[in-house]
Amino acid sequence: MNASQSETPQQILERLGLALPPVDDDPHYTNARESAGGQIFISGQLPYRDGVLPMSGRVGAEVSVDEARDLMLQATLNGLAVAAHATGGLDRVRMIQMLAFVNAVDGFEQQSRVADAGSNLLTDVLGDDGRHARTAIGVASLPRNSAVEVQFICEARR
Amino acid sequence: MNASQSETPQQILERLGLALPPVDDDPHYTNARESAGGQIFISGQLPYRDGVLPMSGRVGAEVSVDEARDLMLQATLNGLAVAAHATGGLDRVRMIQMLAFVNAVDGFEQQSRVADAGSNLLTDVLGDDGRHARTAIGVASLPRNSAVEVQFICEARR
Amino acid sequence: MNASQSETPQQILERLGLALPPVDDDPHYTNARESAGGQIFISGQLPYRDGVLPMSGRVGAEVSVDEARDLMLQATLNGLAVAAHATGGLDRVRMIQMLAFVNAVDGFEQQSRVADAGSNLLTDVLGDDGRHARTAIGVASLPRNSAVEVQFICEARR
Repeated sequence: MNASQSETPQQILERLGLALPPVDDDPHYTNARESAGGQIFISGQLPYRDGVLPMSGRVGAEVSVDEARDLMLQATLNGLAVAAHATGGLDRVRMIQMLAFVNAVDGFEQQSRVADAGSNLLTDVLGDDGRHARTAIGVASLPRNSAVEVQFICEARR
Repeated sequence: MNASQSETPQQILERLGLALPPVDDDPHYTNARESAGGQIFISGQLPYRDGVLPMSGRVGAEVSVDEARDLMLQATLNGLAVAAHATGGLDRVRMIQMLAFVNAVDGFEQQSRVADAGSNLLTDVLGDDGRHARTAIGVASLPRNSAVEVQFICEARR
Repeated sequence: MNASQSETPQQILERLGLALPPVDDDPHYTNARESAGGQIFISGQLPYRDGVLPMSGRVGAEVSVDEARDLMLQATLNGLAVAAHATGGLDRVRMIQMLAFVNAVDGFEQQSRVADAGSNLLTDVLGDDGRHARTAIGVASLPRNSAVEVQFICEARR
């Protein structure tokens, strides 16, 4: 599903029953950093929801693939909030790259399926501006034993 | 070995017995994404050859270091095909960065030796334009149990 | 602690008892690569000190969190040396992004605490120019069994 011409990204989010979380401007932590050339690097996002991780553990053990997809969607939503904040609004975001980490058991093979949940959100909400290069890997551990983490690079639409 | 003045990158590839694979323009998947500033982010490449992974498993167990080097060369060749497609031709590619992932057993120490097989291909074929910053790490798992994965950033020569 | 107005980054380093290591210009290895747009990609840095790794092994087993923090500080210092070399001087460096890897036992949760040792050095020495987007992950293995590795993107101050 792509963004239709008659809906704004914000309207699409609402139709999907989603809302961007508030972005903290903690002076000790940089959510996003812009280069002189206008690329915006977004810090690694964990799937916090209302300030807590809904679930933790390794995918393939304590966390199922479907649960990991829900967590990846949440982490991507958090990254989208930072991107909207940094560019001046959700309708100004152009995604460039996504680097997805899955805290998985040895031999786990479905990193792409987990990452798809985040990729799909981006293209559903932003249409062509949500398309991105992507790399998905499995890792041995993540901060706070989070099941997923995701990093984005974006820019403001020209 | 660097690109000699009398050979084009394409001629060097042929002399090495290599050929760029075709690049799929799947509308649901972005092989490469260019920023307004002209940086091209290439999606994580697996060592597919003719549509299949020649081998899978963890380096240090089912896959040897020499086999992993062959796979890294193939994954890099695949990335080079995307880079050539995105910039308009192999002789237009200037490499910037390589992020190499090795699906390895715990305690594996030879990530750099595996990554070298990809780095060497880039400088062999592209000469100075193939030089790049590089990071190589070991990971616990990769999509489809691939032994290696590699991500590139490049730009068109000016 | 931020860079005070009366101290240069070099003076702050000296007050902290630190010194930038020399940067090797090995023709076979690129420490840093600059894009046409002026972004400088720094290769993954290991915590070498005087040519040797002071310690190796996995954090949470052979290496403690405090030791890992010392190693992250050293690796960051090495990256800062490359950044100063690439931009023309320590007072010319503007940091953009940090990607921190911790070679950790399964279930390790304190990647952020380890990465903080590097982040703090950057903001202590460079002030606002040291702020950066950051991603920290745990990995199963690193080159030479290093406990940490860190990659930076920076640019020259304008």
